[in-house]
Formats: sequence, structure tokens, C-alpha cells
Amino acid sequence: MKAVMFIRKSINISEVDKPARNKGEALIKIKYAGICNTDLEILKGYMSYTGVLGHEFAGVVVESDDRGLIGKRVVGEINLGCGKCLWCLSGNKRHCSNRTVLGILNKSGAMAEYLTLPDENLFVIPDAVSDQQAVFTEPIAAAFEILEQVHIKPDERVLLLGDGKLGQLIARVLNAAGINVLVVGKNENKLMLLESQQIHNILMDKFELCQFPVVIEATGSAGGFDLAMQCTEPKGTLVLKSTIAADTGMNFAPIVINEIKVIGSRCGPFAPALRALKDNRIQVEDLITNIFPVTESLKAFEAAQKPGSLKVLIDFGN
Amino acid sequence: MKAVMFIRKSINISEVDKPARNKGEALIKIKYAGICNTDLEILKGYMSYTGVLGHEFAGVVVESDDRGLIGKRVVGEINLGCGKCLWCLSGNKRHCSNRTVLGILNKSGAMAEYLTLPDENLFVIPDAVSDQQAVFTEPIAAAFEILEQVHIKPDERVLLLGDGKLGQLIARVLNAAGINVLVVGKNENKLMLLESQQIHNILMDKFELCQFPVVIEATGSAGGFDLAMQCTEPKGTLVLKSTIAADTGMNFAPIVINEIKVIGSRCGPFAPALRALKDNRIQVEDLITNIFPVTESLKAFEAAQKPGSLKVLIDFGN
Repeated sequence: MKAVMFIRKSINISEVDKPARNKGEALIKIKYAGICNTDLEILKGYMSYTGVLGHEFAGVVVESDDRGLIGKRVVGEINLGCGKCLWCLSGNKRHCSNRTVLGILNKSGAMAEYLTLPDENLFVIPDAVSDQQAVFTEPIAAAFEILEQVHIKPDERVLLLGDGKLGQLIARVLNAAGINVLVVGKNENKLMLLESQQIHNILMDKFELCQFPVVIEATGSAGGFDLAMQCTEPKGTLVLKSTIAADTGMNFAPIVINEIKVIGSRCGPFAPALRALKDNRIQVEDLITNIFPVTESLKAFEAAQKPGSLKVLIDFGN
Repeated sequence: MKAVMFIRKSINISEVDKPARNKGEALIKIKYAGICNTDLEILKGYMSYTGVLGHEFAGVVVESDDRGLIGKRVVGEINLGCGKCLWCLSGNKRHCSNRTVLGILNKSGAMAEYLTLPDENLFVIPDAVSDQQAVFTEPIAAAFEILEQVHIKPDERVLLLGDGKLGQLIARVLNAAGINVLVVGKNENKLMLLESQQIHNILMDKFELCQFPVVIEATGSAGGFDLAMQCTEPKGTLVLKSTIAADTGMNFAPIVINEIKVIGSRCGPFAPALRALKDNRIQVEDLITNIFPVTESLKAFEAAQKPGSLKVLIDFGN
């Protein structure tokens, strides 16, 4: 089968064996995979990952011990737990210390014609949600994680730095929850997409630095943290969403002086993400910049790295 | 009057005018001042401060509009607020954006024969507390700030990195609150002082890296944050106490991946600190390494910078 691999510091489309599923796992035929900023960071060395890339997908179950799953369209939680530790036993595999992570840590990713995942990681895509929409489930879940971690009050002022792929979804998740969010971005076209969703936004060049009780950093760039820190009120909360391969040189004194609470935020819950898509509370179609067939995956990655780009999908033709 | 000044990147003992008090302020004759790590960081450029150093003191009120204060032994909250902003009006001057800070930010410090502070910043030292003990009120208050910010449960495992001046006080404050704290330090003599307080401790060289739900970073060194991050459980809390003048180069990805909550912690409440000293719940005398007369303040600073040193006091002979 065809697979998009990152090996010896370069991407290529390889012919590899179809994966064999273990007991409790499903074999999934991939329809679409999405390119995430984490994939782009992996190309720069993040997590030292090599192998099949990708963790955002929508597919169809072709084999499973659970007959009810066969033929179903699914998305999948990307963290695979040991099943034995306190994290796994309490239902949160995302922090299992022995976990593997789809296309990120010791687990072959989703940019391939076939993929295996434990049945228990799968979520059936509701009929009202298209395959292309469903690819957004994983990053929407990551946006919902913020609401799992921080109690944002109905009348709280929230600043979101970043108008990119994840920033767009975070803005939409917060907006759908009725939260008063202001997005600061660098790209006028991306801000226009937010404007059409009735989400407050401002161009970075026009933003006069001021402080908010809650700031979310989703710039995907090393300098984002420092700006976010400056924009956080004393005793305020700064949610850190960007994972960056590079080290950042900065002074932590403002965290101490202003007694800021910095909360790291990674993967989130799939169920509310799928519900939001099903109920049409979150729009995602306008975020798709390009769709490339798997044979043109290298072009897909080139497109995803362009500054004006948002979500790029790879179509496996299934 | 004599004052210990930091001017043009060096410390010297100068003869300066006695400060004139404004309405609502007290004139305080200093008995002892303490050297804090923040003072040592100021010598490296922290806060770009120049002027009379020092913010830890015990003294006697010699002038005040409030006759009841005259002759009283006092310590003082080091943050001076504008009195008009929401922070000040709600009783917390420590985050007033127009504040000055004793010996740290636009306010002449405590290492001088006389000092002015607003009456409302003063706390009368209880009879049971000696002048030398009272100098520790400010850093003990900073230790109590952790308990203001973080709910540490009775059976929670807490790791404290740092056996220095502030680390010792944090360990003692937590221990006095019945919290199960393990201190990791680099200095055997300093750990022995904790041992004699029945506080669990271990030498850094013997500490095998493991994770705790609550980690407090009080190493006062740039590398402390990185180690603290490694020692914090997923979804755990890392309290950052060190203020460092230098920039630190590091990778923030572990904060995001492990969804750690980093909480900056600075100044704290004086009242519980004085109560703890009065009730003898916290011992501090063993932390005094040296006491120098004001005329030997330069030696005092030399002594405070030695690795084995803990609290160095300057005696103003009053």
C-alpha cells in the first residue's frame, strides 16, 4: 500500500506492507488524512519521529473483532495506552507514560492506505458529518481540551493569539460556547474567515498591547509565548497550545512577577468535537485550502507550509 | 545616614540624606536588614534597579501621623500601590500596575539607617518575635503565597527543588502546615538543617528522577525550571519561585505534552507569616549564617554570595 513516510529527514511516498491487526484492533481503510502543524514540526525534528506520518484522518473499518464496527466510517483517538496504568484505568489514555501516539510516537501514522487502531479508540462518524469534516475531529477535540482545563466565565475577556489551523478551530469552539474571544492574527484572509463566523479579530499590526485574564497561545511560533506572557493580566491564565521543535530563549521572570498560571494543553475529548460537527455548531469547510491525491502528497506538504495555507487534506481515493 | 547602594554596577556604602516622610507614611529606624537572592540577582541586572538595596527588614517607627505606631517594632509589606486601581481597592497592592517595590522598583530600599513606608504597609512585630526573627517575615510571606495559590491536599506528595534561603522557608512553611514535602538540595549542611526540622530531604546526586503531582522550583538557578518540569506529573502543578535576571534557553514542549500547570509565585501575605513566627511554628534562627555591622556591608554581600551561605543580616546598631 502507499504510505507517506518521514525517513532520513525527508518525506517520500513509499510502497509498504498493509499493517496486520492485532486482537482488539481494527483495520481501517483511510479516506482522507489532514496535515497538522505538528506534522510540520516533526519535519523539523519534533519528537524525533520517523515512519508513516499523520494523525488526523477519516476512514472505514474493514476488519475488526467487533462486527458492528465493520463498514462504519470512523475517526480515532490518537493516543494508545498500556491499558494497565492508573491513567488508562481511569479512562484517559492521553497521559499513559507507556503510550504510543499515531504518527508522532512509536506508532505508524494515518497517511497510508490502511491503518490499525484499537477498537476502543474509534468513534463512529455521525451520518450528518462528511468525511472531510470528520478529519477535523482530532484538532477540534484539542480545542475543546481548553474548556476541559480552564473555567472560562461567560463574560470573561479571552485573547487568542494565532489565526492558523488550530487558532481557527479554537476560536470557533470558544465562540460556539458563547465565549467572548478576540483573535489576533497576521493574515488578513484568515481573519476574514473568522469575520464571516462573527468572531472578533484584529490584525497583529493594529493590535495595541493590552492585558486579558485569559490568553491562549496558538501561534505555532517560538515568539508566541513571550507575546502571550505580556498580554496576560497579573494572576491570569495563559493556555499554551503550540508545540515547537526548537528551543526558545526567554526570561521567565514575568511569570513569577505577575504570578501567571501557564497551562499546557494538548489532545482533547473526541465526543464533544463530533457532537459540535453533527449539530453544525462548528464550521470547518472554509478551512480546507487544498485537497491532493495521495500520489501528490509531497505537493500537499509544500502547500501546507505556505504562510497563507490552512488545512491541506490528502485524498486516498477510497 | 549610611545606606548600602547599588550604583553604576557596584555596591557601596554611601552617606545620604535621611528620607523625608510624606503624609500617611512612617519614618522607620532600621535594626536589621536581610540579604535575599533577589538582591543578588539585582547585582546581575535584575529589574535594572539602582539605589538603596534591600527589602527584608525589622525596624522601629520614629515618626508617623498615627501616634499609636510611634515606638513600635515593625516589618513592612514591600509593595506600594497607587491606592486607586482595582488591585489596590481590593486590598492587594502586590499587583498594582503603578506600584513601586522596596529596594526593587523605584523605591529606596531597606539597607539604610532610615526608611519611609506608608503606615498601611506596616505590621507590628509581636513581643514574642525577636528583631532577627522578624527580618524573615517577608520571605516567609513569600513561602505562604504558595498556599494562597495552590490547594495542596493533606496526603499529596510535594517535591521542593532547592535548599537555599527561600527553599528552607518554603519547606518549613509546608511542613508546619502538615504537608508531606521532599526537599532536593545540593548542600549537605543545608539539608542537615532540614533534617533537624524533621523534613524529608535528599542530596541531588542521590535523587533518582521521578514525578510528583506538585513540584516547587526554588533553586534560584536558570537550570531549575527544566529539572522541575521533568519532575512534574502529567496534569501536575509546578510552582515557579525563582526570579532570574538571565534568559533561559529551553524547550516548552513538555509543558504542552504533559499538560502541566506552571504557576508563578512572588510576594505573599504578612499576617500568617508573623503568626507562624509568634506561635513558634517556624524556626528561622538556624538559617542565619552571618551578621555584619552596616560598615561591613560589602563583606556581608560577599558572604551572601558564597555557595554554603544562607541568610546574611546587616546590623544597623539600633
